[in-house]
Amino acid sequence: MARVGIYGATGYTGIELINVLSRHPGVEIGFATARSAAGQLLSEVFPIISDLRLAAVDEVDPATVDLVFTCLPHNTPELIPIVQRALAAGAKVVDFSDTFRISDPQVYAARRGKEHPAPELLAQAVYGLPELHRERIRQARLVANTGCYPLTVILPLAPLVRADLLADSTVIVDSKSGVSGAGRSLALKTHFGETHETFSAYNVGRVHRHLAEMEQETGLHIIFAPHLLPVFRGILSTIYVNLNPT
Amino acid sequence: MARVGIYGATGYTGIELINVLSRHPGVEIGFATARSAAGQLLSEVFPIISDLRLAAVDEVDPATVDLVFTCLPHNTPELIPIVQRALAAGAKVVDFSDTFRISDPQVYAARRGKEHPAPELLAQAVYGLPELHRERIRQARLVANTGCYPLTVILPLAPLVRADLLADSTVIVDSKSGVSGAGRSLALKTHFGETHETFSAYNVGRVHRHLAEMEQETGLHIIFAPHLLPVFRGILSTIYVNLNPT
Amino acid sequence: MARVGIYGATGYTGIELINVLSRHPGVEIGFATARSAAGQLLSEVFPIISDLRLAAVDEVDPATVDLVFTCLPHNTPELIPIVQRALAAGAKVVDFSDTFRISDPQVYAARRGKEHPAPELLAQAVYGLPELHRERIRQARLVANTGCYPLTVILPLAPLVRADLLADSTVIVDSKSGVSGAGRSLALKTHFGETHETFSAYNVGRVHRHLAEMEQETGLHIIFAPHLLPVFRGILSTIYVNLNPT
Amino acid sequence: MARVGIYGATGYTGIELINVLSRHPGVEIGFATARSAAGQLLSEVFPIISDLRLAAVDEVDPATVDLVFTCLPHNTPELIPIVQRALAAGAKVVDFSDTFRISDPQVYAARRGKEHPAPELLAQAVYGLPELHRERIRQARLVANTGCYPLTVILPLAPLVRADLLADSTVIVDSKSGVSGAGRSLALKTHFGETHETFSAYNVGRVHRHLAEMEQETGLHIIFAPHLLPVFRGILSTIYVNLNPT
Repeated sequence: MARVGIYGATGYTGIELINVLSRHPGVEIGFATARSAAGQLLSEVFPIISDLRLAAVDEVDPATVDLVFTCLPHNTPELIPIVQRALAAGAKVVDFSDTFRISDPQVYAARRGKEHPAPELLAQAVYGLPELHRERIRQARLVANTGCYPLTVILPLAPLVRADLLADSTVIVDSKSGVSGAGRSLALKTHFGETHETFSAYNVGRVHRHLAEMEQETGLHIIFAPHLLPVFRGILSTIYVNLNPT
Repeated sequence: MARVGIYGATGYTGIELINVLSRHPGVEIGFATARSAAGQLLSEVFPIISDLRLAAVDEVDPATVDLVFTCLPHNTPELIPIVQRALAAGAKVVDFSDTFRISDPQVYAARRGKEHPAPELLAQAVYGLPELHRERIRQARLVANTGCYPLTVILPLAPLVRADLLADSTVIVDSKSGVSGAGRSLALKTHFGETHETFSAYNVGRVHRHLAEMEQETGLHIIFAPHLLPVFRGILSTIYVNLNPT
Repeated sequence: MARVGIYGATGYTGIELINVLSRHPGVEIGFATARSAAGQLLSEVFPIISDLRLAAVDEVDPATVDLVFTCLPHNTPELIPIVQRALAAGAKVVDFSDTFRISDPQVYAARRGKEHPAPELLAQAVYGLPELHRERIRQARLVANTGCYPLTVILPLAPLVRADLLADSTVIVDSKSGVSGAGRSLALKTHFGETHETFSAYNVGRVHRHLAEMEQETGLHIIFAPHLLPVFRGILSTIYVNLNPT
Repeated sequence: MARVGIYGATGYTGIELINVLSRHPGVEIGFATARSAAGQLLSEVFPIISDLRLAAVDEVDPATVDLVFTCLPHNTPELIPIVQRALAAGAKVVDFSDTFRISDPQVYAARRGKEHPAPELLAQAVYGLPELHRERIRQARLVANTGCYPLTVILPLAPLVRADLLADSTVIVDSKSGVSGAGRSLALKTHFGETHETFSAYNVGRVHRHLAEMEQETGLHIIFAPHLLPVFRGILSTIYVNLNPT
């Protein structure tokens, strides 16, 4: 029985994770943290059947669990000390943000416009896509869970790259994402009246923050256009490639 | 050609009004105000074909128009001086908030828990439901436009009351509203992920702020349960009455 | 390990049942039947991860399972012989249609306008709501699973009836159902363009086919207005009762 | 005041057309036909405010109007005689099907796998995109209204072609359409439960029936991938081109 802790349980990532773990026969949830909802039952915050009580970050001890999941927003300053404390306490860490996904600190700095906040952690992180890095994930103490868009791009392209089927190293990716990817924080873009019964492209021509992951894992140059679908879950990416003549 | 001004053009009420007025052959829009979007084109704020430029409230002059529409949120302190200034300038006023709908200041005070902010305006306001008060609306200088839920309740009940068909002065109203009624301000309740693919009752057992209007216009005691639909526009109210034996 | 068979696996009831059973550690699916899709994999008919191959009804043997679920449309003539054959083979039967829910054959005849097609089966059927009839369901060989609307009406009302809290034996039920209740058969009413972004009442003032169940299990007279929601799953019923003075 | 007749008024195209024409100050609707709904009021078939009564095709006389719109499904055999009769009676014709859009009868035969059913009509038809063919449309007696997907592809590409900005005659078009394009005929693909809260590509790698129009009007080779959105109206096409170096 693996005992796990969850940091950031009330965002969409945290809730989905709890839904999956609750049905897993080999997992026991030791603690779950939340910021504003600390002290409440999870079932008071979300329509979920659960007797889990949410705790503040400083009320929980990662030494009491085997593994922690960090489900905090991108760029949260609390993330680094939480990860450090968990690793020091002997717990493995699976992080859902994009903090540890770009393995090369120079690429990180170039793309983000600043140095990585914890290069010594980055050095030990493994990109968490089991289909590509299963053995390394097994050994890892810190796993950088794949991003949402990247998953839909890397999984179909990686086998084509390995089999040397692509005639051209530039590919076009037209991605359509449900709204959950934008998280539970309020924004006009995800206000019901602005999203329902409509559809739009966004950030066209700009470098999407998840592009570096896709390029790192496929070795390809990717032209990427993301779109927002009026559905909650799921991403569909339509990918255009030139194949080698057979 | 009637010349009109619109205060609060970028909420859902204002936008809908502009859509209707733009197609009206006898109306010309003289000005439209907005708070944070003042200075921008309306078409920059909303996907609408229009060359209207939004102004700040103190940049427009109600003396230049025949009629103003005030589409401000309920309880906005700016409302009263705007109405006073427009009336003083000779413009008629149609207000979309619930500030002038309860005609009796004592009922207002009892329901709202405070005195009416401008009793002298309230005294001249006419409840703006043409099917009931057409002649008085024609004469009025200040019209309190009917609320969204009340419209769906008063219109079907008023004829039954007039014809003395109801056996019981208590009726049950089960109302289901689209999301636009909650406005364009951000709230978790109207966040796409919380509204889409779900349905819920709210404020059950509490006195809804529009109940007094319904009772004023029908003379009935109303048991009212509002619900939020995952659609943008429209309200459907299912009303249960006991009829007199015929 | 219970071994079960499913008749009618490709309707929404069948698919949902398979989803639930697939995650149940104590259940093994022995067979699943379909009419037009017989011979195909279930995963060819529905986006589901499953290696189940669909069979025709006469290709499966209920003697090979402990329990069968019949997920056929209301009024399918094939139902009665399927149930008879399963019971004769020693399998228990849980039926999802409304064929065996009205326990009194005279009420059945009055409501349906015809005699029950198999009164000897009806006599042994138990109404399948565990909260009310848990022990009888345990003993039963034929269980009539509760209807969709009735579940939302009986569960909240039964405790009030038992505790004698109702001042009036007539109650008002305003129900709102998702579209899945109308099944997977094509109809204009459930065509996307007619259901999406709208909401409507239906069969108002008519006797709904599930009303008899609700009255049988609660002993109440129910005024029932069903509505169709633009969501896939779920029913919310708003119920209006007069309580005894306390 | 132009007097118009509408053939096929109860499909989504016909209804939308009536909505537009009803607000047009220079148009009067002389007749509207329907197949199964002939004899009914349009308002009985659709929630629309209109006193239009639907007629059978053989009850109406195109000589009584200036212009007819034919809003019949693709490949309806009745279309050709209706167009011939209208033209013979002196009425202009705007056809909404794809029967007269491919101007070259040899291309038509190659794409459709059969000869055009009325080459003498095809010879006089004008492709109905005013931005490209305004003068010819003015003169035309038979106008082939642009298809839904083609409109979103031709309008943005034609100016690039004219200005000779494209470095490559092959372009990629990733289109996403609302459900109304699939019409009001029932199909599992447009059943609410199969379309709502999901998104999919279709006909990938096959030659879409509207591709020939796009290529005719742009002169480009188009790689086209259509998708079905869970919204009612609208199409968004994301188009990928290589531009000439400037």
